[in-house]
Amino acid sequence: MNIGIVGLGLIGGTIAKSLNKHHNISAYDTSSETIEYALANKIIHKAYDNVSDFLADNEVIYICLYPKSIINFIFRNKSFFAKDSVLIEISGIKKHMIEEIEKLNLDNIDVIYTHPVAGSEKVGVFNARETIFKNANYVITPVAGNKESNLTLAKELALEMGFKNISSITPEAHDDIIAYTSQLTHILSLSLVNSISTDLDTKKFIGDSYRELTRISIINEKLWPELFLHNKASLLTKIEAFEAELHKFKDAIIMNNSNVLEDLMVKSTTIRTGIGRGENDESWSLPFKGQRYNCSTCI
Amino acid sequence: MNIGIVGLGLIGGTIAKSLNKHHNISAYDTSSETIEYALANKIIHKAYDNVSDFLADNEVIYICLYPKSIINFIFRNKSFFAKDSVLIEISGIKKHMIEEIEKLNLDNIDVIYTHPVAGSEKVGVFNARETIFKNANYVITPVAGNKESNLTLAKELALEMGFKNISSITPEAHDDIIAYTSQLTHILSLSLVNSISTDLDTKKFIGDSYRELTRISIINEKLWPELFLHNKASLLTKIEAFEAELHKFKDAIIMNNSNVLEDLMVKSTTIRTGIGRGENDESWSLPFKGQRYNCSTCI
Repeated sequence: MNIGIVGLGLIGGTIAKSLNKHHNISAYDTSSETIEYALANKIIHKAYDNVSDFLADNEVIYICLYPKSIINFIFRNKSFFAKDSVLIEISGIKKHMIEEIEKLNLDNIDVIYTHPVAGSEKVGVFNARETIFKNANYVITPVAGNKESNLTLAKELALEMGFKNISSITPEAHDDIIAYTSQLTHILSLSLVNSISTDLDTKKFIGDSYRELTRISIINEKLWPELFLHNKASLLTKIEAFEAELHKFKDAIIMNNSNVLEDLMVKSTTIRTGIGRGENDESWSLPFKGQRYNCSTCI
Repeated sequence: MNIGIVGLGLIGGTIAKSLNKHHNISAYDTSSETIEYALANKIIHKAYDNVSDFLADNEVIYICLYPKSIINFIFRNKSFFAKDSVLIEISGIKKHMIEEIEKLNLDNIDVIYTHPVAGSEKVGVFNARETIFKNANYVITPVAGNKESNLTLAKELALEMGFKNISSITPEAHDDIIAYTSQLTHILSLSLVNSISTDLDTKKFIGDSYRELTRISIINEKLWPELFLHNKASLLTKIEAFEAELHKFKDAIIMNNSNVLEDLMVKSTTIRTGIGRGENDESWSLPFKGQRYNCSTCI
């Protein structure tokens, strides 16, 4: 299959690397450094300077730009797409993206809206690695007019890339859960780092917990504000629900109430254990509740 | 050297595993299951039923119980310690611990207060692994009366266990920075998990960010309330500083202010990059700022 990738960044580059064994992969990217690197490292088979040739030659196109640029790209180039081509969109927000793209009245392209729930704090094709998609989650939000065969194609290509769970849900449900699992999570990490105040050399006093919670605080500031602002209502609801839970800890500490703290900890342990790992479930650690040993010295 | 371990849980067990090649390791633990496992797996060389024999035979004792139990254990057994023995304390809080132990007027033991900044969401000797301490941070908070030779001994044993950065700071400075790097971090993870509200199968919509931020929400509810409540003032200050930073995000989202969001993201990226990884620094990822490639399609 001829597959074209617009925007060969971390995600576009990882898609190319994950599919280039069985498909002809070409790319369109305005950075000559990116294209030279991708050709030299055999990540793509071909690069185009001319966007109309690129779009005419590819039956499937992954558009891997920032949300605003996706809409601009399609608007500027809609007449160049081959008839019946499939455009697979991969941004982290869906409702806004669908509304904006539907305004463009694309009558000869089928746009499949998807979200590979995978990434890295690093950017660029130089950091693309097939392991990023390995066993990760992939979400498809079908819309009226999508051909069943194209939805199946997007799903099969995702499995080929290494994704494990492929889910189909509504755009509204997608944006609601992603506001929690991804966007709130990033805001907490950023706020934790931004609230630092110490004269000490912090790195000598951190453990895995801080390392894990702050990896994503190294963030692409050109991408994420858009994602937050186009999912404003859901995200604010999630922030407020989080604040309410944080207040329960704060109040219990102020009141020296260790019973409440214990209850909140049992609650988080129970919920988190119930969720599971979402990838490689066999490696998901047994909850320590089941492993609790009887140590009377310790209690 | 004869080294004794009181409380053979995750930390006590990992200390035993990390030192048992070059020292005689014995343990005192009231759980027969723990002791049988540790002997069968050659984690310890010897176990004692009798606490007075155990204390008389060991020149260095690691006390690896929960904070309250540490104080109770020393109070009950202070007459049994060998003269000039070294008691190495390893809890996650220092000021409260030092105040309580100093009230016991131990005149023939040198208590060295330390904090191995390493652990796991799993508990028990069954989950002890030497890798837990590998390249991790270790903090010593010397007090008046500590012999220089015993402080050096605690440091050398920590290096032998695999710790990398050994720092000496005051108990107050320790509790202040740990309130941020460890305690606040745990509370954020717990509050994130506790604020969940969805009918969807969450594990199909999570990525590495959520996995990393919530690993520690599976928590030992018998240990942590004590740690929080004995570091109340510092911890409340850190929670409030965090809340102020979270409000900046919330306000910027309400006001649709992407410039403020961008500034907050540049700030977190800069701070986090400056901290470094605190272990294996050579593997610390280059900040993407330095790797930013010129992709005009993407902006």
